[in-house]
Amino acid sequence: MTGRVALVGAGQTRFGSLDASPRTLLREALGEALASVEAGLRPAEVDEGILATLGFSGWQIGNPAAILSEELGHPGMPVLRVENACASGGGGVRSAWLALRSDAEGLVLVAGLEKMTDASSLRRRYWLGVSGETEYERLSGLTFPGVYALMAERYLRERGLGKEVLGAVAVKNHANGVLNPKAHLRKPLRLEDHAHAPRVAEPLGLYDCCPVSDGAAVVLLAGEERARKLTRDPVWISSVGAASDTLALADRASLTSLGASVRAGREAFRKASTKPSEVQVAELHDCFTIAELLALEDLGLVPPGEAPRRTLEGRTALHSELPVNPSGGLKSKGHPLGATGVGQLVELFHQLRGECGERQVEGAERGLAHNVGGSGATCTVTLLEV
Amino acid sequence: MTGRVALVGAGQTRFGSLDASPRTLLREALGEALASVEAGLRPAEVDEGILATLGFSGWQIGNPAAILSEELGHPGMPVLRVENACASGGGGVRSAWLALRSDAEGLVLVAGLEKMTDASSLRRRYWLGVSGETEYERLSGLTFPGVYALMAERYLRERGLGKEVLGAVAVKNHANGVLNPKAHLRKPLRLEDHAHAPRVAEPLGLYDCCPVSDGAAVVLLAGEERARKLTRDPVWISSVGAASDTLALADRASLTSLGASVRAGREAFRKASTKPSEVQVAELHDCFTIAELLALEDLGLVPPGEAPRRTLEGRTALHSELPVNPSGGLKSKGHPLGATGVGQLVELFHQLRGECGERQVEGAERGLAHNVGGSGATCTVTLLEV
Repeated sequence: MTGRVALVGAGQTRFGSLDASPRTLLREALGEALASVEAGLRPAEVDEGILATLGFSGWQIGNPAAILSEELGHPGMPVLRVENACASGGGGVRSAWLALRSDAEGLVLVAGLEKMTDASSLRRRYWLGVSGETEYERLSGLTFPGVYALMAERYLRERGLGKEVLGAVAVKNHANGVLNPKAHLRKPLRLEDHAHAPRVAEPLGLYDCCPVSDGAAVVLLAGEERARKLTRDPVWISSVGAASDTLALADRASLTSLGASVRAGREAFRKASTKPSEVQVAELHDCFTIAELLALEDLGLVPPGEAPRRTLEGRTALHSELPVNPSGGLKSKGHPLGATGVGQLVELFHQLRGECGERQVEGAERGLAHNVGGSGATCTVTLLEV
Repeated sequence: MTGRVALVGAGQTRFGSLDASPRTLLREALGEALASVEAGLRPAEVDEGILATLGFSGWQIGNPAAILSEELGHPGMPVLRVENACASGGGGVRSAWLALRSDAEGLVLVAGLEKMTDASSLRRRYWLGVSGETEYERLSGLTFPGVYALMAERYLRERGLGKEVLGAVAVKNHANGVLNPKAHLRKPLRLEDHAHAPRVAEPLGLYDCCPVSDGAAVVLLAGEERARKLTRDPVWISSVGAASDTLALADRASLTSLGASVRAGREAFRKASTKPSEVQVAELHDCFTIAELLALEDLGLVPPGEAPRRTLEGRTALHSELPVNPSGGLKSKGHPLGATGVGQLVELFHQLRGECGERQVEGAERGLAHNVGGSGATCTVTLLEV
């Protein structure tokens, strides 16, 4: 009763501190996505649109999805905004996938969009803070770097590790980001830069934290019949797993594993009848360096306890057994909240079609995208194949 | 390839100025919805949850859906927040419907939740304002009563009508709300009260505007196989149409018709292979009295130009040829933004099962819910039948 669904097009702006309005960013990503469809696609041929956003730092809190039909140039198109904090993009893709399983001729556009750099840091802190646990954590002054610092502190202590393992994640992702023309921070990072960085929240320093970015990303999903008409190189969605966890860290059993990642990953692999060892390229949600280490083990991509050693040995680098974050990840590519999860799929769309030039993962046919909301209260895991 | 989907349970809090936290309101509605399922339903049997909300007036802007799994008592359940301003509830139900068409054994919970009365009026004005058009309308000081006042002014002038036609809508909906134990404003209204009310934005007075309400509402949707196991009285979803329009009034062709309502209605009737004249009970989005008049004609429920006369003649009253807003509507039942669209379906669930006591529409077997976002930039129309 369920049909296959594919990505048939993708586009995104550069992520960064961009001198452009949210509408302008969206228009650029929409244009690139439409242009990427080989058989051509007119705006009026899109059946509906989903917009993933936290609301452009507050400038359009309600009804932002309405701008999708305006900027696409398809007046009246059904639209819906979805929001699961930083996992909004993955949530939007999952919604589209669920809907298209029963619509072989359908075509749904999923856009992610955020404009953050023109908000004051105070406004941003409020805005981000209310995506975490608002009653205890926020009122006690705990911001997101603080939340992830608690996880990192516990992780390093339990395993008897130093901060250089966090540095290894940052150095790798910056090295990848240098090769990505769409990345926010296109500069190499040395391990000593990481070690001597200004402190943000111990044990996290400046280079453990992703930047605050503007950007838009768009993917086009189609049912099987429609997909085959639009492209000779569809990227099939094997499955999208999703799960939740408590908002508050204090309510969780562990600080060194995200339960939502574990559950979303298991659901995704189960529904796709595949297993973690088959993943050949992964985009993981590295909002802070510690998060990439957590994800590697939570998703079963490496055996329990192996994430630090494999990272230090370069076994998650671009040309290795399991390339992680070839795009540069949130750390270097950037993190425009709602656009992040969609942007991960833009990267994998191009990786699995072999279109990534200098940062191409050779021969990759199966990819995974991992998108986390807040400090892990929501998560989606998307599996793709060609 | 698409299967049938039904409502199998529903619950809601009273709408009103309620001395309870968002989590408490949600828990009450969840409990009532679970208890309404005849065969019984445990929290762990819900496959996933969708939360429709504008964010409790800003107290949980990001990731609010995570509280769904916590308050339901189903840790880890996949959740997603959807938001299309005041049409969030309808959007959430549409998402669940689209997903369940390919999942005959699936069960999705859609909750709507808002806590508004404890926010300052300034905060509320900001909060609601950024659900409209933010660049021109908001910066020029136009709030929602102002936007609908422009529509009402134009409507009355074009048709040569006085304000008593607006009053007739308010009087009818208050009369219905008196019979609804869950309504916010359970008091009768006389036409002269309406005529002499304090002015809000000409031609709209106090009794043309819905109240600011707190509340939560929950519906349970199931695929056909699952639905038949859970209840002997499923309420089938015939279809859910959706559409968008420009955010700004100035960009629209008409001030006296909402294009999104017209398109969403047409899509809904087309997909359900039914027609407006078959609707026996309707919950229409009467955020302001003028909105009910617009909707009657936009949806084709009455012939063009007939809405005022039929309303004045009592032909949309509880015991008439087309009962509109038997619940009291937004005007009297109340309008807790995200909960409103879900609450409309709670009402229709009980109406079509003949469970509405004093306000029961006799013999109703086909219902329509019409949910509008902002000043009409988004809209859903849901058709139900037993």
